[in-house]
Amino acid sequence: MSHTQALCRFLAELTYAQLPEPVLARTEDLFLDWLASALASQGAHPIPLFERYAQKMGPSSGPAQVIVNGRSSSAYFAALVNGASSHLVEQDDLHNSSVLHPATVVFPAALAAAQDLGKSGRELLLAAVAGYEAGIRIGEFMGRSHYRIFHTTATVGTLAAAVAVGKLLGFDQEQFINLLGSAGTQAAGLWEFLRDAADSKQLHTAKAAADGLLAAYLTADGLTGARNILEGDQGLAAGMSRDAEPHKLSADLGRRWALLETSFKFHASCRHTHPAADALLQLMQREGLDAAAIAKVQTRVHQGAIDVLGRVTTPATVHQAKFSMGTVLGLIAVHGKAGLVEFHTLALSDPAVSAFRDKVSMTLDREVDDAYPQRWLGRVTVTTEDGRTLHGAIDEPKGDPGNSLSRAELADKFQRLTQFSGARTPAEADALIAKVWQLRNTPCMAHWL
Amino acid sequence: MSHTQALCRFLAELTYAQLPEPVLARTEDLFLDWLASALASQGAHPIPLFERYAQKMGPSSGPAQVIVNGRSSSAYFAALVNGASSHLVEQDDLHNSSVLHPATVVFPAALAAAQDLGKSGRELLLAAVAGYEAGIRIGEFMGRSHYRIFHTTATVGTLAAAVAVGKLLGFDQEQFINLLGSAGTQAAGLWEFLRDAADSKQLHTAKAAADGLLAAYLTADGLTGARNILEGDQGLAAGMSRDAEPHKLSADLGRRWALLETSFKFHASCRHTHPAADALLQLMQREGLDAAAIAKVQTRVHQGAIDVLGRVTTPATVHQAKFSMGTVLGLIAVHGKAGLVEFHTLALSDPAVSAFRDKVSMTLDREVDDAYPQRWLGRVTVTTEDGRTLHGAIDEPKGDPGNSLSRAELADKFQRLTQFSGARTPAEADALIAKVWQLRNTPCMAHWL
Repeated sequence: MSHTQALCRFLAELTYAQLPEPVLARTEDLFLDWLASALASQGAHPIPLFERYAQKMGPSSGPAQVIVNGRSSSAYFAALVNGASSHLVEQDDLHNSSVLHPATVVFPAALAAAQDLGKSGRELLLAAVAGYEAGIRIGEFMGRSHYRIFHTTATVGTLAAAVAVGKLLGFDQEQFINLLGSAGTQAAGLWEFLRDAADSKQLHTAKAAADGLLAAYLTADGLTGARNILEGDQGLAAGMSRDAEPHKLSADLGRRWALLETSFKFHASCRHTHPAADALLQLMQREGLDAAAIAKVQTRVHQGAIDVLGRVTTPATVHQAKFSMGTVLGLIAVHGKAGLVEFHTLALSDPAVSAFRDKVSMTLDREVDDAYPQRWLGRVTVTTEDGRTLHGAIDEPKGDPGNSLSRAELADKFQRLTQFSGARTPAEADALIAKVWQLRNTPCMAHWL
Repeated sequence: MSHTQALCRFLAELTYAQLPEPVLARTEDLFLDWLASALASQGAHPIPLFERYAQKMGPSSGPAQVIVNGRSSSAYFAALVNGASSHLVEQDDLHNSSVLHPATVVFPAALAAAQDLGKSGRELLLAAVAGYEAGIRIGEFMGRSHYRIFHTTATVGTLAAAVAVGKLLGFDQEQFINLLGSAGTQAAGLWEFLRDAADSKQLHTAKAAADGLLAAYLTADGLTGARNILEGDQGLAAGMSRDAEPHKLSADLGRRWALLETSFKFHASCRHTHPAADALLQLMQREGLDAAAIAKVQTRVHQGAIDVLGRVTTPATVHQAKFSMGTVLGLIAVHGKAGLVEFHTLALSDPAVSAFRDKVSMTLDREVDDAYPQRWLGRVTVTTEDGRTLHGAIDEPKGDPGNSLSRAELADKFQRLTQFSGARTPAEADALIAKVWQLRNTPCMAHWL
């Protein structure tokens, strides 16, 4: 049995009863965190473009809900708009070793299909777990070379979304094999847009969620796909990776729950900035330094951080600022935090932040790079204005599995994000949080929001 | 000015008045040929799956027509279904040096958008020319290494479709740059499905046409894209090619009309089989041989033919038979032709064809490979049952620009294809052919079919 076949058998045979309680609870946490990210983007460019496209090209209403505007559409367009929405504010979850943001592709597709099919909260949770477990393993399989050019959340995300919907559709092993073929051959998404601060990141997650759902519905209706799309000679790894590791596709299925390794984002910036941000914050607190006392910050990072962040020197937009190591560290140093409010009110306009930005550099660090992507180590070397050299190090950034957010912290993040956009009042947000904690007892997800 | 910028300026500035008469006439020819291919697939798997998906996920009716079922939908879903339909029977056009099938991605998107936007036949023709000129150059730019793993009609087809719709939307240079970014970052499609005779080829063209249209409509509404998606360090060529040639993007714009180099398909098989099929046919006629007199056929081919056809030894489906060099040559040798009817009635069931199939081999030929993809040379070496060794060679397969189909031959092909599926009676087909020859005088494409 090939690694792909083993993965597909696992996905077909996985039942709700097999899910350990911590996995179920964490899936609810991740769903809440995802919903917050989607609501936080309400009204912000380019989300209304996707809303208008869905209204123009889709039905005027339908069984699946569009989170940011309270409308409904077909499952396809709900997945499209919700996929775009939940990746905009850079607050959605991340799995470290796969460098995949699973929530923003898995949940839009799974919720849309669950609503369309009238499935229960338990079926939704099971589908999401299947999507996470498959997506993370496929991301790990594709390796670091893939991520240098391709936005893994877009490419691998298409397969993760497809798997979640396939699980809701009750696929057997054979259908999952065909599904991976049809999803994998649609996998796309290049990092090139970062240099220009273009809107492609939202296009990527929108399309990954929607294309994955399309692959699943067509597979259910009998569309066949390549049986070896991941490992084959003209498949995904052959075309888009140079260091693929097939054994990662099927390693520890049902024993290792990769979903539990997913990190929540604490800062509202690209995850590659978080280890250095936490290390700097800790060093400043430890040494009692303020921003003015710092002459230089050298962040010692993994190559992936340089690939993704290296393009941005002077950010031109708020979104680009989230990919600027100097800006993120500037917000941390000057204001003590780098949340959505700080990005929108201070990242581009506060001269103290831009002054600090120019003090920050990135260099490749062998130890940090060797640990990546399994561990995201934070290492900073600070030179003070009075000539001292200080070192800061953290091994688990805030939000990582060993340093995770509690349900109270997640609820607080939900309130902050929904109030940032004005999508929900505090009382409405509380009610929605309570509904999420009841997901596993929800008999039907239709009209859930 | 970069090559991409030069291409975008050309696309923005191109007017109908600039199109030479042969280009206009050939575009009408190509449109007719495309329409025949779409109608020929009516009722055949997997096209009804795409029709049902469009009905489920799209509006119940709309401004754009679905060719195979007479229904209507939004432009997005019409492009999706028509894109799937026109690539099924392997009779759609091909541009040699780019190895792109332009019609099946350009026309579905262009017709759907023209109907949605109420554009004229002239605007449709101009948009199609823009799509062909851009798509062919981008295909040539991506090089042979791309085509080894990726289905160029799927990947580059997304950009070609997008450009056609962008032209209908009246894009300026800046919008075309953003459009290429948003289309290019969606480019996907792997050859892996061929080994399994899976349905991905139709998924590829469906998605290329629909995704290209989506990119154009979102760009018109303000979505930005990577400004250097083709040539950039994390762009299409960086991720999916090893021999890209940027100068090909902007070479001879407005002087060389690449659309005129597009070939019509005469045999109903993969184009990679046509040079050898024509060479064998010519040799058999020249020498007065019949199939029984032939002991062995060695086809001397380019590497691309081996990559695409080498997977298929014993075809299991009619579609796979079209990718089997032995089967195609068997039909030619035993029945004198390899049209749709021969494939559906004889390719899998006639023992004389399968017996001939086993006499056919492919070997890489240096001369043929060096000429490819600019020229598709046909070279066969036949060993006869009485021990002679005979050589056959043709330099321009039937349907190539220097050996093209006349309007009468195209009309005949249209009749054969529409009667094959029963989509149109001969009289209805004649009426439709006459409408196509009036395209440039059609004031509005809405409800055109």
